[in-house]
Amino acid sequence: MTRVFNFSAGPAMLPRPVMEKAQQEFLDYNNLGASVIEISHRSKEFDAIINQADVLLTELASIPENYKILYVHGGAQMQFSAVPLNLINRLPARKAVYIESGNFAKLAKKEATRYGSITTAATSEASNYDRIPDFDAASVDPETSYIHITSNNTIYGTRWQQFPDTGDIPLVADMTSELLSRKIDVSQFGIIYAGLQKNLGPAGLACVIIREDLLAHALPETPNLLNYKTYAEKHSLANTNNTFAIYMMKLVLEWLRDSGGIGAIEARNESKAALLYDVIDNSDFYLGTTQTAHRSIMNVTFNLANNDLLDEFLSQALANGLYALKGHRYVGGARASIYNAMPREGCQALADFMQEFEKSHA
Amino acid sequence: MTRVFNFSAGPAMLPRPVMEKAQQEFLDYNNLGASVIEISHRSKEFDAIINQADVLLTELASIPENYKILYVHGGAQMQFSAVPLNLINRLPARKAVYIESGNFAKLAKKEATRYGSITTAATSEASNYDRIPDFDAASVDPETSYIHITSNNTIYGTRWQQFPDTGDIPLVADMTSELLSRKIDVSQFGIIYAGLQKNLGPAGLACVIIREDLLAHALPETPNLLNYKTYAEKHSLANTNNTFAIYMMKLVLEWLRDSGGIGAIEARNESKAALLYDVIDNSDFYLGTTQTAHRSIMNVTFNLANNDLLDEFLSQALANGLYALKGHRYVGGARASIYNAMPREGCQALADFMQEFEKSHA
Repeated sequence: MTRVFNFSAGPAMLPRPVMEKAQQEFLDYNNLGASVIEISHRSKEFDAIINQADVLLTELASIPENYKILYVHGGAQMQFSAVPLNLINRLPARKAVYIESGNFAKLAKKEATRYGSITTAATSEASNYDRIPDFDAASVDPETSYIHITSNNTIYGTRWQQFPDTGDIPLVADMTSELLSRKIDVSQFGIIYAGLQKNLGPAGLACVIIREDLLAHALPETPNLLNYKTYAEKHSLANTNNTFAIYMMKLVLEWLRDSGGIGAIEARNESKAALLYDVIDNSDFYLGTTQTAHRSIMNVTFNLANNDLLDEFLSQALANGLYALKGHRYVGGARASIYNAMPREGCQALADFMQEFEKSHA
Repeated sequence: MTRVFNFSAGPAMLPRPVMEKAQQEFLDYNNLGASVIEISHRSKEFDAIINQADVLLTELASIPENYKILYVHGGAQMQFSAVPLNLINRLPARKAVYIESGNFAKLAKKEATRYGSITTAATSEASNYDRIPDFDAASVDPETSYIHITSNNTIYGTRWQQFPDTGDIPLVADMTSELLSRKIDVSQFGIIYAGLQKNLGPAGLACVIIREDLLAHALPETPNLLNYKTYAEKHSLANTNNTFAIYMMKLVLEWLRDSGGIGAIEARNESKAALLYDVIDNSDFYLGTTQTAHRSIMNVTFNLANNDLLDEFLSQALANGLYALKGHRYVGGARASIYNAMPREGCQALADFMQEFEKSHA
């Protein structure tokens, strides 16, 4: 088997030790004689798994005691509906404010308009989302039920470097492409949510971290399995949940802990991203597609000054074991998604390839 | 490794060849150098998987051309909300009729009451759901948007032997615990849905088979990812779907095809169930908990005449490699879930054990 470096934006590569452990015990979990994928979500074995996931996530993300961890069906985009269903009714005006920093932020806003009066307080659409737009939280009407941001923009390769202080208005953040990649002060947020398939596990499930006082506002038309209170009360097992995804997430969290925790991972992620940004910044051959001050350390986006070389760049990269580097169609060019699981060697290999390719085509 | 016979009601055992194939290619799918769990839902490799799942399911279930196959987030219980959200608005009266044949039928009905005027046309609650209640479809108001049934009742061990002719009113069936276990005439139904985790694959996803003309009635408050039209238009990939579950389902469908298709599986399932029902019927030691004429061939429920022996029965069974036989708390006793993946040897081993246990305790 030739192992490649997989730069897929998501579903993304998972840590190699996690994949090997999952494979090794795939037919027989804990000497049960059955797979973890084949046992009841109400078995004591699965109970231990979900409890351990809670403990690890609480520790890794320093989650305060007044927050609940939920494992919610449907990935991050299902939360685009669940967030307004659960939160817009917090105040009678049913108003929410969205910051449009990319395509997913825009989709989240569009979905929310079904349930209340939604305002875009800032957008960087005019520059094709090459930056996080300026936003003054003080300008927001205090009768707003929540303010929504996308903390890292997978398609464009930008991120919020700091988060706005929204005072008494709960700040809701889609952190799908960066949760657990850097230190975050959870207490700044009312809700943090993330689809698992980038930094946390397989696709199909979202992790939601919610301040307890926000669990009581669901609209009456909220489907039971989109009501965060249902998840909080039933430990995410009101129905048969995606047990395999929760198991895989637990393995990822163990790996994160064993890798030194968030501080160590963040430092590693910064140095991985720097390998690529250094090549881009020291070259006229490659052009970063985002404003330098807004760069993500999870998704590195760039173009070739001569766009005619892009196809050759991508196909040669693939021939060199560098998989899934094609940029999203909304940006073009190339994108290297380098989540927690991407080893430094992968970034080094890509940086080396980029320099070689430049030399042979300059 | 000691392999057990796993009688879990769900998540349930998967066919052994499926599990072995998934394990074998878990780190490297199709010589990609990456796992199927790590690749994009928009990659050509995943596209081939979901297309193949469609083809196989269409063939195995003889799905007519005017139906769509959808892979919907959240399992069957999420469809308890999605069905009324998508269908109750078919007629202005917003009426639906539910047949209450068990706990899940009751939960489905309860969820529907958020969205319209819901009637229970028949219930067997008074006899603790030991049968499918009598139901006369001709008595239903023609202004009803749909009629909902649960075709096989996992907890109680009953099933509809035949399905009611509901004329112009779409019949909606939750077939979670029996889809692809017996021949069904899909054209009798407006919607068939099933959580994957019993007969089709891992937990967290539902398969929905819907007649195309029913795709156009969603209520405006329907979350985008509960709108069946979204799934139909985007081939279930409007967002990142549970790719691993779809991959596993494809493997299960291949195994079903290679096992001779539905006719062969149905015959095998009937003979497997008969092994257990014969023991029950030829004994005063065991008591079936359902009416004989309504018995399921997927979930065999029984009690011991002397209930004091139940714990010993269950623990001795476990010691003999017969796993997860405890009945649901709503029924008590024992339950053997014997979905497609349960080999005949498993049923034989349980039948033998039951006879031995009876001999030594009679």
